Amino acid sequence: MAGSSTGLIFTVSTFGESHGPAVGCVVDGCPAGLPLTREDIRRDLARRRPGGGGPSTSRMETDEPEILSGVFEGRTLGSPIAVLVRNRDAHSADYDELRHTYRPGHADWSWEAKYGLRDHRGGGRASARETVGRVAAGAVARSFLASQGISVRAWTARAAGISAPGPAEPGFDLDAAEMNPLRMPCRNAAEKALAILDSLRSQGDSAGGIVACEVQGLPPGLGEPVFGKLDARIAGAILSIGAVKGIEFGAGFAAADGRGSELNDRPLPANRDVPGLGIPAMDFASNHAGGVLGGLSTGQSLVFRAAFKPVPSISRSQETLDSDGKIRVLSIAGRHDVCVCPRAVPVVEAMTAIVLADLLLIARSNRLL
Amino acid sequence: MAGSSTGLIFTVSTFGESHGPAVGCVVDGCPAGLPLTREDIRRDLARRRPGGGGPSTSRMETDEPEILSGVFEGRTLGSPIAVLVRNRDAHSADYDELRHTYRPGHADWSWEAKYGLRDHRGGGRASARETVGRVAAGAVARSFLASQGISVRAWTARAAGISAPGPAEPGFDLDAAEMNPLRMPCRNAAEKALAILDSLRSQGDSAGGIVACEVQGLPPGLGEPVFGKLDARIAGAILSIGAVKGIEFGAGFAAADGRGSELNDRPLPANRDVPGLGIPAMDFASNHAGGVLGGLSTGQSLVFRAAFKPVPSISRSQETLDSDGKIRVLSIAGRHDVCVCPRAVPVVEAMTAIVLADLLLIARSNRLL
Amino acid sequence: MAGSSTGLIFTVSTFGESHGPAVGCVVDGCPAGLPLTREDIRRDLARRRPGGGGPSTSRMETDEPEILSGVFEGRTLGSPIAVLVRNRDAHSADYDELRHTYRPGHADWSWEAKYGLRDHRGGGRASARETVGRVAAGAVARSFLASQGISVRAWTARAAGISAPGPAEPGFDLDAAEMNPLRMPCRNAAEKALAILDSLRSQGDSAGGIVACEVQGLPPGLGEPVFGKLDARIAGAILSIGAVKGIEFGAGFAAADGRGSELNDRPLPANRDVPGLGIPAMDFASNHAGGVLGGLSTGQSLVFRAAFKPVPSISRSQETLDSDGKIRVLSIAGRHDVCVCPRAVPVVEAMTAIVLADLLLIARSNRLL
Amino acid sequence: MAGSSTGLIFTVSTFGESHGPAVGCVVDGCPAGLPLTREDIRRDLARRRPGGGGPSTSRMETDEPEILSGVFEGRTLGSPIAVLVRNRDAHSADYDELRHTYRPGHADWSWEAKYGLRDHRGGGRASARETVGRVAAGAVARSFLASQGISVRAWTARAAGISAPGPAEPGFDLDAAEMNPLRMPCRNAAEKALAILDSLRSQGDSAGGIVACEVQGLPPGLGEPVFGKLDARIAGAILSIGAVKGIEFGAGFAAADGRGSELNDRPLPANRDVPGLGIPAMDFASNHAGGVLGGLSTGQSLVFRAAFKPVPSISRSQETLDSDGKIRVLSIAGRHDVCVCPRAVPVVEAMTAIVLADLLLIARSNRLL
Repeated sequence: MAGSSTGLIFTVSTFGESHGPAVGCVVDGCPAGLPLTREDIRRDLARRRPGGGGPSTSRMETDEPEILSGVFEGRTLGSPIAVLVRNRDAHSADYDELRHTYRPGHADWSWEAKYGLRDHRGGGRASARETVGRVAAGAVARSFLASQGISVRAWTARAAGISAPGPAEPGFDLDAAEMNPLRMPCRNAAEKALAILDSLRSQGDSAGGIVACEVQGLPPGLGEPVFGKLDARIAGAILSIGAVKGIEFGAGFAAADGRGSELNDRPLPANRDVPGLGIPAMDFASNHAGGVLGGLSTGQSLVFRAAFKPVPSISRSQETLDSDGKIRVLSIAGRHDVCVCPRAVPVVEAMTAIVLADLLLIARSNRLL
Repeated sequence: MAGSSTGLIFTVSTFGESHGPAVGCVVDGCPAGLPLTREDIRRDLARRRPGGGGPSTSRMETDEPEILSGVFEGRTLGSPIAVLVRNRDAHSADYDELRHTYRPGHADWSWEAKYGLRDHRGGGRASARETVGRVAAGAVARSFLASQGISVRAWTARAAGISAPGPAEPGFDLDAAEMNPLRMPCRNAAEKALAILDSLRSQGDSAGGIVACEVQGLPPGLGEPVFGKLDARIAGAILSIGAVKGIEFGAGFAAADGRGSELNDRPLPANRDVPGLGIPAMDFASNHAGGVLGGLSTGQSLVFRAAFKPVPSISRSQETLDSDGKIRVLSIAGRHDVCVCPRAVPVVEAMTAIVLADLLLIARSNRLL
Repeated sequence: MAGSSTGLIFTVSTFGESHGPAVGCVVDGCPAGLPLTREDIRRDLARRRPGGGGPSTSRMETDEPEILSGVFEGRTLGSPIAVLVRNRDAHSADYDELRHTYRPGHADWSWEAKYGLRDHRGGGRASARETVGRVAAGAVARSFLASQGISVRAWTARAAGISAPGPAEPGFDLDAAEMNPLRMPCRNAAEKALAILDSLRSQGDSAGGIVACEVQGLPPGLGEPVFGKLDARIAGAILSIGAVKGIEFGAGFAAADGRGSELNDRPLPANRDVPGLGIPAMDFASNHAGGVLGGLSTGQSLVFRAAFKPVPSISRSQETLDSDGKIRVLSIAGRHDVCVCPRAVPVVEAMTAIVLADLLLIARSNRLL
Repeated sequence: MAGSSTGLIFTVSTFGESHGPAVGCVVDGCPAGLPLTREDIRRDLARRRPGGGGPSTSRMETDEPEILSGVFEGRTLGSPIAVLVRNRDAHSADYDELRHTYRPGHADWSWEAKYGLRDHRGGGRASARETVGRVAAGAVARSFLASQGISVRAWTARAAGISAPGPAEPGFDLDAAEMNPLRMPCRNAAEKALAILDSLRSQGDSAGGIVACEVQGLPPGLGEPVFGKLDARIAGAILSIGAVKGIEFGAGFAAADGRGSELNDRPLPANRDVPGLGIPAMDFASNHAGGVLGGLSTGQSLVFRAAFKPVPSISRSQETLDSDGKIRVLSIAGRHDVCVCPRAVPVVEAMTAIVLADLLLIARSNRLL
């Protein structure tokens, strides 16, 4: 499983270049009997689709998924689920100049150093369009998680230097997140941030931000010691999203400055047993751990935050190099997001769901039964 | 490869519980012909070994590695390299109380929820002692990297709220790092931090910190799109180290507040070709990217920072639960680090080296040749 | 990688049900820069395509492949190569009776015992139509092998009890194999066997046979000890083809009755060195080993034979059970091969090529360089 | 997982050279809570141990296993189970001549072509001694299978041209197999074969044979379509055993000459349901399939046969080449088996058990639950 596949039991492979015929995914190892329709996938794809206005690219893709296999009469068969999405609104001519020029902040030059050639149109395989396959696969994973009582929700926690309130703070409104183009859980914060982003766009510039994610309903003990820890798997999956420069769980980097007596989450008696396990359920007085201890879920919400760098494609002129090693001044036309966060939200959810589905299925082998 | 193995070509498996007979590792897929001696492994193990004073545990382990296989007349054979380290100074009786009590901030309860039973002595498999196997495997990886001109260096960048200067700042002295018990690249900062840690120890408390890592000599284009990206693989590996709560590459979380025009590292002509590739080499005016773009190395130094939470084992009394679900007041005796950073430094280096060795070997298949 | 993927570096995933929208494959890890066209894939697909008359099914599929990704301007990009083939001539109504009836000699009942449901139309995922994806992926692998000077050729060595001459025997004509509908390397033998098969078809019965395969041009030392041996990998790949009941390498089962002094292939001096290795090349006086010793290629031709059982779908009436556990008398209509061997030939070649491509790429990591 | 590891969930890695310090294994992914003692492992090791007289080598190894990890108070922890067996009776001097000479029928030369160097002592990693680790891991797997009501039994079905009766034939006595040094399920056949083997030994020659294996108690539906089929996985595992040249399931190669109407096993009503599945249980009038259809278990016994070539190490003089490419006449001293079958029996059982354990654990993810 070189690079475009992930997962041990619930495995996801994506394929496709930005301006090739199609993008898509194959999900293998999904349990049989799961209800799954094209509409489940379309719904998630619509959330990452460009064309929604706000800080996002104006490329218009209908992103109609076709389920090619693995589903029969509305239920998964246990066989690979292949999903195909055609590329339709590719303006490859916009990229002609880039055939011999390496964009700053992109992988153009590294890619060529690696493979000796590249598809320069729209970033090829390195384009964010690759995440269509991830989101489609994530929809399958989310459907499985839903059957187990688990929900994954992400939102834009910060953009262009403006933070939305956190889950425990006043003004946090997760339902509002889907109603503004930034996916911020607070209308006021979103408006402030959007104003800054508008200004940046007009300056030919871009901004970064932070996407937060919360998973509810996880059973305790999820994750595989020692290299397959819950947080290790999530971190690997989230850092595989382009533009992510960091991740933190629970108290995160702030934990580095705390003391053990502050950071340990105090266990509280729950006065019930964990169903089927014969050990007492445990509540906690806080969640500095972010729902994971020693790489295993604690039964609290899994909470993490991912830092996204500013979109590197800016129309402001930049110096770079061409394939002769000469300096070129580049002003990137094309259609690009000013801030990637709102469209990254469903990708973060998808990657999280994919990892959790895999860990849940692996966990079925943990005990003798 | 359930949980205790990692890597596709250069694969590392660790085994062992803290108070069982032994810990160790098996490295499969190491190229044949690499010079490797027991001394190479002993040297790295000595750096993570407890008993060095300062903020570290007083458990005394000689940690003498035995190479069981895979090396013949001083060179690797291409076959699995198994390394064994006996546990000798295990005070299991210190842990009797913990058979039925779950320590706060540890995976005791989650582990039991997962497996239905656990080895309570010294944290069992969840102990930091498991990292002996990682460091031994890391020594093999580092030997391979050295043969390719690549070096991996980590240090304690921050502890107990005190920061050492960064690589570009005055006072940064990486050689000094191995000469103080905190492994800080600055004697003054180390002394300040040690004073605070001494005070915390006397209060029965502990502190967290940040470990930074820099890799030099990487060829451009290292990493496997899309799920096997360089930063994704590193993030997964580093988050698999106990107590790590976050990671950031290059500008990291600060990048979330920057603009594209600031964060894009400007390419500079290098006036030479990348050897054997027929494309121009590229220098950069800055390294906000931390040496990785689109998941591929840029040829600059790979730079990342990992946040470690405070050691959860503190002698200060804490409330927790026992296996009957009753509240227990616990004061953890045993011998524990006050700050894990200095001993984590070689573990961070080891995990980084293991990932890089794997990616370098995978990369040999990238082109037709 | 649950079940529908194979390979470590050169990984192949197939997807699709017999009567679903499409079948296909994703090949990840193919080196960049390999010339590859749709015609390369079409050519191999044409060889497994039904409708060629003779002992094969009359289902007519044009089997037009579409390359969805991974190829740019006629060369592989290093990214996943997805190939799609639509199902067009599916007569699903032919299978209505089988929704509640389990065919003898098929996996219908086992499949339902495993997954709790199945796509009964045309055998669903268990249909030989799944091998379209294998053959498409095999075409990619064969193109890579060709670039390394390696050829893979299979043929029908025996059918309906009639054997063709072997490679060392008079009458063996491999070019003739593609010119008769049985793919036998001897026109006379083919005619005899075809006559018997015609008779069996008219009796509503079917026959088995043996497919032989020979690989030329392998470098010595290919294969990964101990579980990834060349013959182990090939055996696993060939037994994954439906209807295969056995495999043997070189002298095979006959070796079980021989003596060491007879079976050891005597090395002969080649009076040259293996290029780049500094060891003498070796010829052999015989090839009882079939080109593999200790799981590593010897540099001789790799030679193996696979036994195929008779096609279980016969129109002669058979007793079986339905989903109520009642006895049902079944006469399988549909369109079925009488002997699977000729259409299995390209599948055997494809699976062999896929394994070899993977092992060749893994082998690049064997030495220090 | 380059070469020395196998399995997806229940993963086994072996390590060790024949004349190095030790051989052993690491089993990861074994469910927690399984009773396991050193005695369980010792018992299986004793069955493959040399020194038992008859056709086997006179190398004396006590083969005392040490469980290094993964077991606590008599039960598996869910963590890796490492087992160590020291090499004690290695007569490395016997092999000095082989440092520069390649033995016929061995992988000496191929190994050197692959890795550029080799451990010539006792065959190094290519020695049958490597199977100690497999048998130890197999003991863990067998213990797990036993907990699921599954038994694996192998025996020598044929040696030196003498066949023992098959399971359905008069004279078959599986209990007798452990009481003669050939492990043949028939005392008379064993005596005849032993007489021939004695004669071969005195002539400095060796013989091959066939090992048969039968697995009882498998649930229906075991195996992962399409590349992880039950028979594909078993074939790959068995061909990874040195000296195996072929495998066949059920009717095997004889099926190639049969007709569909003969080979299809007629289903019989069992008048009960498969527990928990809601489908009727199925009996069969025969077992030509060998217990596997479409790569999934049928609930019948899994039956296969493996062909072993004669031991290539013979004391009779043979011509071969040395590292200068010159012809050398070699008479292999050392201590070698005349027929490998009896000692291969526990290895066949171990590999079978390892595959089945893995497939059983993977199968837990097949359905939604």
